[in-house]
Amino acid sequence: MLCARGISLALIRQNADLYYFSGTVQDAHLFIPAEGKPVMLVWRSLSRAADESPLENIMPLEGLSRLADAVKDAGINMDGTLGLEMDVLPAFFYNFYTDRAWPGAKAYDISPLIRETRAIKSQWEIDQIRAACRQVAEAVETVPHVLKPGVTELELAAAVETKMRISGHPGYTRMRGWNQELGYGQFLSGGQGALPSWTNTPGGGQGVNPAFGISASSRRIQAHEPVIVDLGGSVNGYLCDQTRLFSIGDLPDHLKKASDATLELQHKIEEQLKPGTISGTIYDYALDFMSQLDYQAHFMGTGRDQVPFVGHGLGIEIDEYPFLARGNRMELCAGMVVAVEPKLIFPGEGLIGIEDTFLITEQGAERLTLSPQELRQL
Amino acid sequence: MLCARGISLALIRQNADLYYFSGTVQDAHLFIPAEGKPVMLVWRSLSRAADESPLENIMPLEGLSRLADAVKDAGINMDGTLGLEMDVLPAFFYNFYTDRAWPGAKAYDISPLIRETRAIKSQWEIDQIRAACRQVAEAVETVPHVLKPGVTELELAAAVETKMRISGHPGYTRMRGWNQELGYGQFLSGGQGALPSWTNTPGGGQGVNPAFGISASSRRIQAHEPVIVDLGGSVNGYLCDQTRLFSIGDLPDHLKKASDATLELQHKIEEQLKPGTISGTIYDYALDFMSQLDYQAHFMGTGRDQVPFVGHGLGIEIDEYPFLARGNRMELCAGMVVAVEPKLIFPGEGLIGIEDTFLITEQGAERLTLSPQELRQL
Repeated sequence: MLCARGISLALIRQNADLYYFSGTVQDAHLFIPAEGKPVMLVWRSLSRAADESPLENIMPLEGLSRLADAVKDAGINMDGTLGLEMDVLPAFFYNFYTDRAWPGAKAYDISPLIRETRAIKSQWEIDQIRAACRQVAEAVETVPHVLKPGVTELELAAAVETKMRISGHPGYTRMRGWNQELGYGQFLSGGQGALPSWTNTPGGGQGVNPAFGISASSRRIQAHEPVIVDLGGSVNGYLCDQTRLFSIGDLPDHLKKASDATLELQHKIEEQLKPGTISGTIYDYALDFMSQLDYQAHFMGTGRDQVPFVGHGLGIEIDEYPFLARGNRMELCAGMVVAVEPKLIFPGEGLIGIEDTFLITEQGAERLTLSPQELRQL
Repeated sequence: MLCARGISLALIRQNADLYYFSGTVQDAHLFIPAEGKPVMLVWRSLSRAADESPLENIMPLEGLSRLADAVKDAGINMDGTLGLEMDVLPAFFYNFYTDRAWPGAKAYDISPLIRETRAIKSQWEIDQIRAACRQVAEAVETVPHVLKPGVTELELAAAVETKMRISGHPGYTRMRGWNQELGYGQFLSGGQGALPSWTNTPGGGQGVNPAFGISASSRRIQAHEPVIVDLGGSVNGYLCDQTRLFSIGDLPDHLKKASDATLELQHKIEEQLKPGTISGTIYDYALDFMSQLDYQAHFMGTGRDQVPFVGHGLGIEIDEYPFLARGNRMELCAGMVVAVEPKLIFPGEGLIGIEDTFLITEQGAERLTLSPQELRQL
């Protein structure tokens, strides 16, 4: 695939990509030539890399200033073109590679190619995502035990997060998009759930302070308001994404009706998740569905904070290909895993919605997330 | 300061820098001219930006393709030179600004200037760091209640992290270095505490799996082995860093002796934390101190995984100026806040050490972290 795009050598540096292509996360330069075997030059830790990675050619790198020589010594053919992860590689390194290590080298952005490759999951990867779904299904059952009037969003978050942490969650979630940040997920209640944020998500939440203005806050949860529990499971580096809606006592009828609409749309979208569907058409369908119910001004945000998508691929990052987004022309294929999250925002009242992780197979979609989908009024 | 370095306009994009210069974290372009008032162009969320930031000039930005026009409309003088955060800005954006938005624009790396500015803390910033120290001092008192033979590192981590989460910790810690990742801190026991990792830290730990090979693992903690609890408190975006050493029952004598050495060195370093000291000399002193005790092969790692530093500045990121590192020539000034962490690695046995956060004043160092410094044998 590198060769077909005129790239003779790819350089992998970012944690998630390193894990995908080498099985370990180290401070390393992984060179993948269009022809021949990959070579990983490791600053630290060389011993951890050797223990964890199945790659054959793992060699030490004694600092960036030695890079060009080390590449030559390793017999890597650096002919002046270099594929780089331009969407995540800091400008400092980009300039270092193209000005100092190999002056005049021509850089190609290999991020789209990496993301396309990663979009189709192997059986092993799917098994890890299934395990992440089990982790989340168990953790979310903490909610009915904790959710009482007066509990804070942070107390609810801590109870669920503890359960996930003990089962092996690293505590934070990898996102590819720059400046995107995520812990275990989002815990949003009442009107604060309707607050927008900088992240590419329909809901934001107040967060703990303006430095971290997303997800749970010290707000005390009340009866009869929506409580969103949006969790990213994490097992062996692989993620799932599931959102469930709770309330203490009944929700007002108009919010219950909105919840029913998101669940109905979820079932409709599930039917369209099959090989050959164009990703963007699912967003178009979702928007049309919500427009017919007069929810278009609430769909995936409000006003200028609306986000034009209804789902996203996921794997070792929470924002992988394909994007079920306006104008996206990617064709769905068997082996893709997508999170679908139709959500409605009611300013001052809260966020209503659902999210499930689906595997696309030749026979259609298989829902991987395991929790009951219905609104749970406790 | 911009002007003195020949930079007419700085563009701030990264979360931590945005928070520092605007008081809010949004998807925004903050332009700071050498002369005149800053202008923040906000994609989303404009309403959150207006609510949270004291800046006067906050305007909407309707997508990257509109950037150059929006800058012109805002009356910003873009004369062809642009200061960028080159250490964190992805290559994609660097190329976008210098090739597409302003073709031929000359970029300057303003990261060192930003980091120098941020190194001197205001009274308000110091107050937030003090609050983070109180958060950690309370959380660490959970340890004696949880630490029993057979408890896993993850169970210990979850118990302490829950306490911090409920008190308003966002759950993860901002680091400037690329690919560096951190949750609440590190929980390391026995031989696994001696494992190196890719991060710029003396200890790594096994982590939950090779995708996240740092900090706590499912290992069951035993009696008579070192247990390291390294916590990054977080209040209003500001951090502290504290490491304390525990054991269930007595530690072996040679590890107790090593612990005494790190504590003695900590006191010696504290005396040198005053205005005028050159940062690198503190590392030289520490290495010399440990060499005289024949610990040089254990200091801050072993073999090729040794890291040549003994401390670091911190504030809204855990890796700020100044670095108490080999060859670093920065002069310490009043108002700087540094974490000092002399640590010794004993392969197969564990990590021994301490870490405190200090404020540098005209009168010398003030220790901000509050927990008792001595090894606690439970």
